[in-house]
Amino acid sequence: MKNFDFYNPVKILFGEGKIKEITNEIPSDATVMVTYGGGSIKRNGVFSQVMAALDGFRVIEFGGIEPNPKYETLMKAVEMARSEKVSFILAVGGGSVIDGTKFISAAIPFKGDDPWHILTMGDKVEVTQAVPFGTVLTLPATGSEMNMFAVVSRNSTTEKLSFGHPLVFPKFSVLDPVVTYSLPVNQIANGVVDAFVHVIEQYLTYPANANVQDRWAEGLLQTLIDIGPQALANPMNFDVRANLMWSCTMALNGIIATGVPTDWATHTIGHELTAFFGLDHAVTLSIVLPTLMRETREEKKQKLLQFAKRVWGIDVGTEDRKIDEAIEKTEAFFQSMGIKTRLSNYGITEDQLTPIFNRFDERGWKLGEMKTITSERIKKILLAAL
Amino acid sequence: MKNFDFYNPVKILFGEGKIKEITNEIPSDATVMVTYGGGSIKRNGVFSQVMAALDGFRVIEFGGIEPNPKYETLMKAVEMARSEKVSFILAVGGGSVIDGTKFISAAIPFKGDDPWHILTMGDKVEVTQAVPFGTVLTLPATGSEMNMFAVVSRNSTTEKLSFGHPLVFPKFSVLDPVVTYSLPVNQIANGVVDAFVHVIEQYLTYPANANVQDRWAEGLLQTLIDIGPQALANPMNFDVRANLMWSCTMALNGIIATGVPTDWATHTIGHELTAFFGLDHAVTLSIVLPTLMRETREEKKQKLLQFAKRVWGIDVGTEDRKIDEAIEKTEAFFQSMGIKTRLSNYGITEDQLTPIFNRFDERGWKLGEMKTITSERIKKILLAAL
Repeated sequence: MKNFDFYNPVKILFGEGKIKEITNEIPSDATVMVTYGGGSIKRNGVFSQVMAALDGFRVIEFGGIEPNPKYETLMKAVEMARSEKVSFILAVGGGSVIDGTKFISAAIPFKGDDPWHILTMGDKVEVTQAVPFGTVLTLPATGSEMNMFAVVSRNSTTEKLSFGHPLVFPKFSVLDPVVTYSLPVNQIANGVVDAFVHVIEQYLTYPANANVQDRWAEGLLQTLIDIGPQALANPMNFDVRANLMWSCTMALNGIIATGVPTDWATHTIGHELTAFFGLDHAVTLSIVLPTLMRETREEKKQKLLQFAKRVWGIDVGTEDRKIDEAIEKTEAFFQSMGIKTRLSNYGITEDQLTPIFNRFDERGWKLGEMKTITSERIKKILLAAL
Repeated sequence: MKNFDFYNPVKILFGEGKIKEITNEIPSDATVMVTYGGGSIKRNGVFSQVMAALDGFRVIEFGGIEPNPKYETLMKAVEMARSEKVSFILAVGGGSVIDGTKFISAAIPFKGDDPWHILTMGDKVEVTQAVPFGTVLTLPATGSEMNMFAVVSRNSTTEKLSFGHPLVFPKFSVLDPVVTYSLPVNQIANGVVDAFVHVIEQYLTYPANANVQDRWAEGLLQTLIDIGPQALANPMNFDVRANLMWSCTMALNGIIATGVPTDWATHTIGHELTAFFGLDHAVTLSIVLPTLMRETREEKKQKLLQFAKRVWGIDVGTEDRKIDEAIEKTEAFFQSMGIKTRLSNYGITEDQLTPIFNRFDERGWKLGEMKTITSERIKKILLAAL
């Protein structure tokens, strides 16, 4: 096992009817900016529950944060928050609203030249303050509700970049499975796949003798495989939605990443597919992961065999056959969630990939837990996914 | 799944050589009281690492905190801390030192008549302040390094009682597996059993449709079964000790208890065996759990079958036979750790149990996740364990 630090101070309020408890979690003299997305929260009753809980607070609204939240949009919220002297933010939405809110939270008091540097300059830019915020999660998927990471896109440069800082841990997150009942099935499917791939990125690497972390990752994968189809079939089953919500949160709150190598190549490649073609995040993961697993089967051999056995129960055949079968079952699972796993399913052709290949060539990044996924291999991975 | 809140802000510093990092975690102007037990830390190099990290701080020592820490001892530390104006405590030891330090931390600024009320009056006594503290864990077992609970004994009344409060979460805990290399085998065995039973108390109840929590509990049990014998046989294997340390911490940091019923009857009964006979905590758990499982096999039937299948791989036979086999394997596992599982192994006879029976009769407590374990059934459990 590798050395590690673990710290996660997010308070979770989980269960039916918990939205009302946010009243006790926000300083009573706060000016609260409520951030949200396209407005579905005004149709499904979440917004009215939130506003009832915020009775007595000074409240500012900022709606319209889009999927893959855009820098251009978020900077409008930053300006509004500065002029209204907002002292607390409440993000009501899924990963995009929460990620966008993390950026807003850090950008409001940012002292540097350009808040975009929070995303581009890594450790070289100093985030020393952030406006505190909580979340009411409406879409189980990204895990953003219990971590300190955010991904933000910028239209003007076709970029999708991430940052992380302990100051942007949510102070609290409300997880009420009931609010997910009205979600469209494709969003639930995306959430299942997103959480599944989050776990894979922290598990399917090389053996690190981290028994608990392996067992917990496998437990999350088994749970998602069990409940994924049920979550699509029975939208109002509380326990299924509760298990989905908790799986998604546990998949990316840092606990299964303790002491182990992580990969994140599927995400890095997938982000470019979103940046260039506007594909849903989970769709990009479903496209990239199966061919990435095939391309890296030698590096990942031991863990692929463990994954085959413990997660899929594959116990017979040659090692190669077991690995093939595990990859086939994984791809079939994504398809069973209603997600097509080929670039051509989305009308994307080989020549359209050239700008992505060029970008990875220019960057010269080496991805994966062993830094062995060069731009040449990224090309092979994407061409195999056509 | 049940509604729940989850909050655990303890920062974990895990790995070889991490003790030196405590320098950055303690306010630089602090007067630090270092609390410890019998002095083994002065022989195994831990104390000198700690003192090197505390170079430049004003440091006060308080040693001699005994196993099952005593109120009488801890109050001496409270007096010393008050007169020396201690502003930070560093607990260096196992669960007893850490539990004792939690009590010291809450008792120093306690405003009520008698600090013993922290333990006896539950929610009726108000803990509003605590002196902040961190820990350097030397004995993986109790999980106290990452939770807000403590158990304290009092000689004058033969009592062993617990309390919990968010103010007594450690600010940080250092988990360096190397410091466990010099532990006596019986202490390692006790740690394995203690963690195992912690998991069982949060898992072996009735089904709550909490898939992740079940999988994670099973993963911890499987890990302890795998590494327990290795930890005894290979004291200097880093990965084995690292897995043991992490298992013990994860077993009782609240995460597997989210949304599920919990039992704690084995602990409650075991505490009396320690209070009256001075048996090691883990020994009492090894004695009580097997007969408690037999006594409550109807209430716990579904989870016992799940435990038999997923943890022990028991797949054939009648339901009754599977349950018998799971209980036998559990008891045999404790014995394989070198712990004898019968009261008579420790020279305890039936008539010596009378004061314990009387105490439970007087209290009238009903224990277990369904509150079905009456004093009559506690008698049966203990008599069956003779």
